[in-house]
Amino acid sequence: MDKIYMKDLKNCLGQKIEIQAFVDNIRNLQYVQFVILRDSTGKLQMTIEKNEDNSKLVEIIDNLTLESTIKVVGTLMDSPKVKLNGMELIPESIEVTSKSLPELPIDIKNKDNTLRETRLDYRFLDLRREDNNLLFKCETLLEHALREYCINNNFMEIHSPKIAAGAAESGAEVFKIDYFGQTACLSQSPQFYKQMAMASGFDKVFEIGPAFRAENSHTSYHATEINMADVEISWIKSFEDVMDFEEAWIKYGIDKLKEKYGEEIEKTFGVKLSDTSVKIPRITFKEAKQILKDEFNYIGEKEEDFERKEENLLCEFAKKKYNCDFIFVTKFPFSARPFYHMLDEEGLTNSYDLLFKGVEITTGAQREHRVDILEKQMVEKDINPESLAFYLDFFRYGCPPHGGFAIGVARVLMQIFEIDNIREATFIYRGPTRLNP
Amino acid sequence: MDKIYMKDLKNCLGQKIEIQAFVDNIRNLQYVQFVILRDSTGKLQMTIEKNEDNSKLVEIIDNLTLESTIKVVGTLMDSPKVKLNGMELIPESIEVTSKSLPELPIDIKNKDNTLRETRLDYRFLDLRREDNNLLFKCETLLEHALREYCINNNFMEIHSPKIAAGAAESGAEVFKIDYFGQTACLSQSPQFYKQMAMASGFDKVFEIGPAFRAENSHTSYHATEINMADVEISWIKSFEDVMDFEEAWIKYGIDKLKEKYGEEIEKTFGVKLSDTSVKIPRITFKEAKQILKDEFNYIGEKEEDFERKEENLLCEFAKKKYNCDFIFVTKFPFSARPFYHMLDEEGLTNSYDLLFKGVEITTGAQREHRVDILEKQMVEKDINPESLAFYLDFFRYGCPPHGGFAIGVARVLMQIFEIDNIREATFIYRGPTRLNP
Repeated sequence: MDKIYMKDLKNCLGQKIEIQAFVDNIRNLQYVQFVILRDSTGKLQMTIEKNEDNSKLVEIIDNLTLESTIKVVGTLMDSPKVKLNGMELIPESIEVTSKSLPELPIDIKNKDNTLRETRLDYRFLDLRREDNNLLFKCETLLEHALREYCINNNFMEIHSPKIAAGAAESGAEVFKIDYFGQTACLSQSPQFYKQMAMASGFDKVFEIGPAFRAENSHTSYHATEINMADVEISWIKSFEDVMDFEEAWIKYGIDKLKEKYGEEIEKTFGVKLSDTSVKIPRITFKEAKQILKDEFNYIGEKEEDFERKEENLLCEFAKKKYNCDFIFVTKFPFSARPFYHMLDEEGLTNSYDLLFKGVEITTGAQREHRVDILEKQMVEKDINPESLAFYLDFFRYGCPPHGGFAIGVARVLMQIFEIDNIREATFIYRGPTRLNP
Repeated sequence: MDKIYMKDLKNCLGQKIEIQAFVDNIRNLQYVQFVILRDSTGKLQMTIEKNEDNSKLVEIIDNLTLESTIKVVGTLMDSPKVKLNGMELIPESIEVTSKSLPELPIDIKNKDNTLRETRLDYRFLDLRREDNNLLFKCETLLEHALREYCINNNFMEIHSPKIAAGAAESGAEVFKIDYFGQTACLSQSPQFYKQMAMASGFDKVFEIGPAFRAENSHTSYHATEINMADVEISWIKSFEDVMDFEEAWIKYGIDKLKEKYGEEIEKTFGVKLSDTSVKIPRITFKEAKQILKDEFNYIGEKEEDFERKEENLLCEFAKKKYNCDFIFVTKFPFSARPFYHMLDEEGLTNSYDLLFKGVEITTGAQREHRVDILEKQMVEKDINPESLAFYLDFFRYGCPPHGGFAIGVARVLMQIFEIDNIREATFIYRGPTRLNP
């Protein structure tokens, strides 16, 4: 017999089945024992009458602890009176396959009864909570949909190296490794290598993989290890092509999520997934600053970039005016952007941010692929071109015009599910003071 | 106009199109110029008659270097006389979007004309070779198929942390990181964390991601950073369930590969993909040793494990006797296995290796999920249980019986395509003396 999952039980009514599960709950009454069984797909009631025939089974349940795992052989009965799915399992034999300690160190039914740091210490138990189970099922589906969309559009997947000789963007926030006596770095992003793939003629690539940031930050949205989705596309005509792709891509992901888990998400997280029928509005950075002034009477402290408050207000604007949870802001000043963004005639970058429910989730851009201009832009940013000689070489033997973007998956999950802390949206969170489990 | 790819040109015959591509070849004759254009999907001939009207275009081509990129507007003509696809592009305008240096540091048409190490120095050019383009398209497809098979079977995808406090299996081969003044390690495998997901009730999980090995090895099949595909399954009855899954999974991947690229692979690599209709034979370690003795008169040096030569011979045996490129060997002695493999009544492990064309590509097993036995097995392996306290905790609060396996993707690619060196089967190879590009 293959393993039967709770979600498929309706196909087994009236049959003798073998089922394995966690012990979710036990009600040990005078004449009957009710045991709720659980796997990641659902729950089932097992019912044991306290009679002589069942004395062995009753004894097992008497000694059973919650969260243990058991293997049961029994008959699955149609029982309309049972609240849970209208069925119950009448066991013939029960084997305890693992026994839990009687006291759990955290409350896995109610998150609020345990401090977050304690829950993170026992993340393996914290993840048993139903909302977490749903969250990571949704992450699975979302990532698969995003990959699928790339594959359907003939992208190649790359696995860029995570150990590198030098830092990708800035030396300060990089973890150092002892590499056979040399010092190497942990990759902050696949940026240089996905651009390399363009120089290699790979046309269009994506990668979903880890990136590392040695930032000693303790905010609700920083982590030292994050899961990034990176995309890079050759032969583009402008950064608008990149935005077009990202818009279609993220909408595809949200639609797939809605299709399979929309209702469950609404029930569990109280969140309605974003409407994807609206075209995402696109405004320039200059227009954005004007809107902030005109509509909100707000002038940010930074002239050449946004504060979080401004991102928030711009999303409020997009929601009000376009009924859209997203907004693209384009043409950022060069001072707010890395050296490799392409500039237009006015010296503004051919780049964009995608804001989603008040937070920036992407930076995208057309890249400068002409080596002489790239070198000039490095110098303007006080970067010694010799320090990135290997990267500059990528552009010396022909390189297609190209652009791309990256998103942090946990950051997107936080926004979709309206989760307030990245620690809750990551399988295993890593921060300056958290290396365990 | 959207970017037109070479593979879709037949839909554009007779039309005016804009196309971007690499300059693959130029034949500059007395009365005509032939330029071969290339993207990752194919090639196209552009033809320019040397007449007065075309003088500007002719001049551009006169100054063009191979491997530059250009953007052409022109008419795509049906030309049965043209050997390449029976069509040619008659340009109206040509824009050089990036100009290559006139001399390439490696030969990108013929691999054998450049030393491997030089090719790796210029990996971004080496990857332009057609066989490499096909290889990484196949890797993309294979991985997608393997993920798809998991997703279709309700697996969850995890992203286990790559930075960890301690080493997964042995301390010696681990890269050390300076983590805000503490020493942390780079993960050698998701082993502990995929087992953690079982304790978290995730039922079935997979991960495709990087793993790091600080082995100072310079062989043709070692790398310090590899791309691993990991699978872990709860509620199994025995390790046979794991083998059943892996067999179906790998066959699904190969079938998908065959379907889309079978012919191209045969043409380019001279390799026929494995027959997946044969059930993979399963023999015990003890039987395997007997076969080696009886069939090959070979007695390996190690009594409790295999040498490469023995793996080779066992595959020869499977091919001859079962016409199968694969063979499972089960029930290895505990001395050859890690502490967490479950033992049977005879003290043999409930584990297996999968051999493929002469090489071991997987180790799989049922894991010991009973914490008291696990501790005992650690002690037998001279591991201090306190050093893995966080891992032991996973099994204290109920944990489903579970098992799983892992494969190195590059190792599988090497075997499928009969590539003799892992450096050729990895996007960017990392070894003790190679950190660049």
